[in-house]
Amino acid sequence: MTGDSASAQRDERPHVVIVGAGFGGLTAARQLRKAPVRVTLIDRRNYHLFQPLLYQVATAGLSPADIAAPIRHIVRSQANTSVLLGRVQSVDTARKLLKVDDREVGYDYLILATGAKHAYPNPDWEAFAPGLKSVDDATSMRARILLAFEQAEQAEDPAEQRRCLNFVIVGGGPTGVELAGAIAELARRVIAKDFRRIDTTTSRVVLLEGGPRILPALPENLSAYATRALAKLGVEVRTGDFVEEVDETGVAVGGARIESRTVLWAAGVRASEAHRWLDAESDRAGRILVGPDLSVPDHPDIFAVGDTAHVPWKDGQPIPGVAPAAKQMGIYAAKAIMARVAGRKPEAFRYKHAGNLATIGRSSAVIDFGWWRPKGFLAWLLWGLAHVYFLIGFRNKIAVMADWIWAYITFKKGMRLITGGPHK
Amino acid sequence: MTGDSASAQRDERPHVVIVGAGFGGLTAARQLRKAPVRVTLIDRRNYHLFQPLLYQVATAGLSPADIAAPIRHIVRSQANTSVLLGRVQSVDTARKLLKVDDREVGYDYLILATGAKHAYPNPDWEAFAPGLKSVDDATSMRARILLAFEQAEQAEDPAEQRRCLNFVIVGGGPTGVELAGAIAELARRVIAKDFRRIDTTTSRVVLLEGGPRILPALPENLSAYATRALAKLGVEVRTGDFVEEVDETGVAVGGARIESRTVLWAAGVRASEAHRWLDAESDRAGRILVGPDLSVPDHPDIFAVGDTAHVPWKDGQPIPGVAPAAKQMGIYAAKAIMARVAGRKPEAFRYKHAGNLATIGRSSAVIDFGWWRPKGFLAWLLWGLAHVYFLIGFRNKIAVMADWIWAYITFKKGMRLITGGPHK
Repeated sequence: MTGDSASAQRDERPHVVIVGAGFGGLTAARQLRKAPVRVTLIDRRNYHLFQPLLYQVATAGLSPADIAAPIRHIVRSQANTSVLLGRVQSVDTARKLLKVDDREVGYDYLILATGAKHAYPNPDWEAFAPGLKSVDDATSMRARILLAFEQAEQAEDPAEQRRCLNFVIVGGGPTGVELAGAIAELARRVIAKDFRRIDTTTSRVVLLEGGPRILPALPENLSAYATRALAKLGVEVRTGDFVEEVDETGVAVGGARIESRTVLWAAGVRASEAHRWLDAESDRAGRILVGPDLSVPDHPDIFAVGDTAHVPWKDGQPIPGVAPAAKQMGIYAAKAIMARVAGRKPEAFRYKHAGNLATIGRSSAVIDFGWWRPKGFLAWLLWGLAHVYFLIGFRNKIAVMADWIWAYITFKKGMRLITGGPHK
Repeated sequence: MTGDSASAQRDERPHVVIVGAGFGGLTAARQLRKAPVRVTLIDRRNYHLFQPLLYQVATAGLSPADIAAPIRHIVRSQANTSVLLGRVQSVDTARKLLKVDDREVGYDYLILATGAKHAYPNPDWEAFAPGLKSVDDATSMRARILLAFEQAEQAEDPAEQRRCLNFVIVGGGPTGVELAGAIAELARRVIAKDFRRIDTTTSRVVLLEGGPRILPALPENLSAYATRALAKLGVEVRTGDFVEEVDETGVAVGGARIESRTVLWAAGVRASEAHRWLDAESDRAGRILVGPDLSVPDHPDIFAVGDTAHVPWKDGQPIPGVAPAAKQMGIYAAKAIMARVAGRKPEAFRYKHAGNLATIGRSSAVIDFGWWRPKGFLAWLLWGLAHVYFLIGFRNKIAVMADWIWAYITFKKGMRLITGGPHK
């Protein structure tokens, strides 16, 4: 018996508790590996998830294990770090205690990296239009998409069959664009020969964006390019109207109705409940309004990073909820704590924007580095290399690359499993 | 719109309906690909599962998609075959109709290949001692095993901690032996460095067999060898007593009690409900007592294969429930139907026993070919090659081989995901 509780009594090192092992929390933990502190990394899942590729699990391109790595395994060689699988219930800032499930965990410094979940203007819509944040979201979305084709194959009523072959993705950000492209390819190429009664190439994939254009974070010409690239894959892009209604048989948008058995939600997220724990001031999306050092006002020992934090950036917009931003904040928070421990005052956080990107199907992407804006196949290659490079865990890199190359050569997608409880 | 319903009216070819896309049903369907018949392959899952490797999914060695292939994809080039995702409710032998969910499917010939599920002497035990038959079984078993270590890491009470580090596998057949070996390796090698408070190498893995020895289907010297090989991995083998009680905190066996939070069930299976559909005579395990041509008495047009059929073999024992047996029966049933269609009388089914085998951890196995009985590393290599060879789908072969080689070199197991609903 080594470590945590045993050493808790004699261990005089400050205790840094990190809630959430996403990009922000995990990066913070790694940054602290040599610091004179004791680190406890808390997550309600036992794995770190590489969310940027989650849409490929949802569209049968990758297996969950390809984009997830056990948290314990990632930090196993960090002697000062222990991992706690659990769900934070509340924070007692006066006593500096976290309630994790039914136990109490004390902290000297706290980093909140609890991420975001998908948000709906109308909570009733979630049942009909699932979002994509967790592995379970992805596998059940995969099941829904695959079952739609099965139901179309069985449908006697042509209208119902049509409904089953219509796919609506709500939200024209990167996730929506990537889902739409992948579903169109699945329907038009991957499974085209698998059915007898239906012609899956007649599937209709509609991408709905309330704003004037998809990928609003990218320059207009890249949005336009993406729209054309999606059209080539057979995706209808519809902008300028917000969804008015979502139910079991479709969506209402711009006065029109689109019949569909498969409506997927990629329209905006909101931050986790962390701000409630501290009852801290937050923006409309629930992100805590942090100070220049990412600490929570009135709580200098508590930091918020990634999707949990609202950090002003430019044009009145906060720093975007992307992985590089979360990582930078995680590293900064760790360094700020190290500075405090060393009795120094940390400099203010400065965000370096790496750029924005989105991939469109199997051979096209758009990237905005600011100084360079590649699009098409070259951008797709860069996108693929970048994602594989950042994937945690060497095995995963190999597996993902093998799956991609295989899928690219053969147009096959092997992960077409309908699992997880009774879908019929 | 091509195929099934459209052609149903004009298609004069006999309609062969196969229920179940396991080894028996799938092999039958493939055998019929050039026959002058119309084939409908019905399964309640959309994938064929390579069950012999399911224990590796349950022990985080493989991903579900590595050992599963979409049924539609496997038979996509068989023009005379269509796939129906659904659950058979009943069979009307008078009208030659199957009730599949809420629809009726007519048949001229019917092959029942509905497999088996795990069976418990006491139904209450299932909640405490899950079995291993489906992908969902495997992922939830994986979650249970991994959560046991997490709970041990958190446990304050030493007795509870011990309970969490005790693993009991009930049933000394190949599945039990393979599970026990894999769990022992997981605890002693794979995750040994991942925890701070507990020493996972002190985990206790107990394999319980009610009979006099494990692997009863193999000759005694191989059983003895397997017992020694398991002991080397740290597995306690206990034979000669049947489990008397299973509850949330352990099992009672031979008057003694073994405390454990993780009891896994590998002690016997029983056939599906197919015999009820026909109200046919079946053995204690629910297998239909078929005739020499595998047809169901009084139903010459209905065949039962694989785990659904009781076929006398030797020493009063029926043909064992192994993949090669199911495949041979599937091929035979297909040929018998082709003979009937051609107006010929099929010869009686003859079973060629390929042998028995079991693998013990990452580098040992025992095989009984009858004429040759390799054991140890050579047997393990043969086992690995044989299984990869029989895996359906080239991609899966590559992925499985890559995962195995990787795991073999690194002792890592990457698929350690706790997924599927709230386990905490």
